Amino acid sequence: MNFEQVTIVGPGLLGASLAMALRARKVCGRIVIWARSSERIEQCSGKEWCDQAEEDLARAVSGSSVVVVCTSVASISSLVSEIMRHTSEDMLVTDVGSVKEPICTSAVESGRGASGAFVGSHPMAGSEKSGMVHAKADLFEGKPCIITPQDDTPEVATQAVRAFWEKLGMKVYSMNSGEHDRSVAHLSHLPHLVSSSLAHCLNAIPEEWKKLAGRGLMDTTRIAEGDPGLWEQIMAMNKSHLLDSVSELENSLKLARKRLENGSPDEVREFLEIGSLFRKSLGNRDK
Amino acid sequence: MNFEQVTIVGPGLLGASLAMALRARKVCGRIVIWARSSERIEQCSGKEWCDQAEEDLARAVSGSSVVVVCTSVASISSLVSEIMRHTSEDMLVTDVGSVKEPICTSAVESGRGASGAFVGSHPMAGSEKSGMVHAKADLFEGKPCIITPQDDTPEVATQAVRAFWEKLGMKVYSMNSGEHDRSVAHLSHLPHLVSSSLAHCLNAIPEEWKKLAGRGLMDTTRIAEGDPGLWEQIMAMNKSHLLDSVSELENSLKLARKRLENGSPDEVREFLEIGSLFRKSLGNRDK
Repeated sequence: MNFEQVTIVGPGLLGASLAMALRARKVCGRIVIWARSSERIEQCSGKEWCDQAEEDLARAVSGSSVVVVCTSVASISSLVSEIMRHTSEDMLVTDVGSVKEPICTSAVESGRGASGAFVGSHPMAGSEKSGMVHAKADLFEGKPCIITPQDDTPEVATQAVRAFWEKLGMKVYSMNSGEHDRSVAHLSHLPHLVSSSLAHCLNAIPEEWKKLAGRGLMDTTRIAEGDPGLWEQIMAMNKSHLLDSVSELENSLKLARKRLENGSPDEVREFLEIGSLFRKSLGNRDK
Repeated sequence: MNFEQVTIVGPGLLGASLAMALRARKVCGRIVIWARSSERIEQCSGKEWCDQAEEDLARAVSGSSVVVVCTSVASISSLVSEIMRHTSEDMLVTDVGSVKEPICTSAVESGRGASGAFVGSHPMAGSEKSGMVHAKADLFEGKPCIITPQDDTPEVATQAVRAFWEKLGMKVYSMNSGEHDRSVAHLSHLPHLVSSSLAHCLNAIPEEWKKLAGRGLMDTTRIAEGDPGLWEQIMAMNKSHLLDSVSELENSLKLARKRLENGSPDEVREFLEIGSLFRKSLGNRDK
């Protein structure tokens, strides 16, 4: 066993998958799940990845070496703030939010004078499906995880959070929270908005065309299916970086239109070539 | 056996896959392959899906019940025009081009007085990979195929082209060539341009961010890898319909930006919801 006890705050897709993975990989002795409603508590009780289900946050974190907040991104800051009041010496608090700067900034405030330490995490694993029902033990395996320690984060806490995700099979990278938010605006939030916008405009096509949808359309619109409530929160929290990346996309699209309208075949081909080479440079990491 | 002999003009990804599928499903007795260069002829000779490889077009089509032109979309019209001069009674000529109106219009001209009949086809099967080396016998299986007979196409020719693709396991739909080009502008060419534009703008990201690319980015940019030369031809041939669909995408993207900048959370969520519901309405036809 590597950690005595871990508390997971919020048993959704990520939280429940995390609990399954902790159990499967024997990363900790006990797993405590906190959930907001007694209905959820009941759903978790008796699951083999849940040793204790708690509605009371102070009781849920008590005695844990690691607390991972896995609720929706907009609710993480206030939960972290409450958890910091109940931390004990050497307790590590982290989260799974896909936007980091607002969460880390607020955690610095709420963590002042606390016994434990907060370090932000973003395990880049997910799905267009959400909820406990889609949870699976291998969700995190082989995926990247970004940790975002602040300048004043104790080194021991940074090491602990890195070790935690590595034990779950993730590739851990460290970055400051601002660079994190800029990078995911480009790599995740912009692709989502592009996919959604494509699906949004295609909503007007004749119903009988849908049977002609091929793999290209299915691929480009797959993530558009993701939970609109979750994605609204993510986009709102990372609005300024996202809008910057939208401007870059608009510039590329404008150039594509201009070359299609008036450019030579070579100019159109060169535009497509840049995109093709970029995609090739990402390699082939499909599962 | 359903057809005595079939000629495939151009053994690329589609042509070679077609030959493999014809053989695997015993759709015809003999398979003749036409290729432009003696090097290609040599590559095909001896393949178990090639009974005869020919550089001479007249000899290649002679004695075939069906001739399928599988070359790049910009070269189809001129090849069809030459083939029509060598057709015999009851010979069916078709193609696999992903744009149909210019090809069908030109085939009406070149087919005047010919013994055989041309009917356009668009088997909607493909890959971001191109070339004979990626060919596979099941490429067409279960995929849609659009046929585009003209008003004056003999009914027997329409029936023959439908039967041909159905024997290969395809779902065949009939449409006029103008509607075909409008629908694929939306369902295939627009998604490609969007995927390419996303990949084009992301070409400027720092190299070290690439390791963070997740499934969402991989999916949305997958088709951007497709052969720039082929896609330049397709986009040029379907330019006016494609530009119309680009305008629709620009409108959706503009609305997304406006709502992100000034809208309420509900307005952003509603935008994402429309895209999510559209994607759900396509069902799950992932392989």
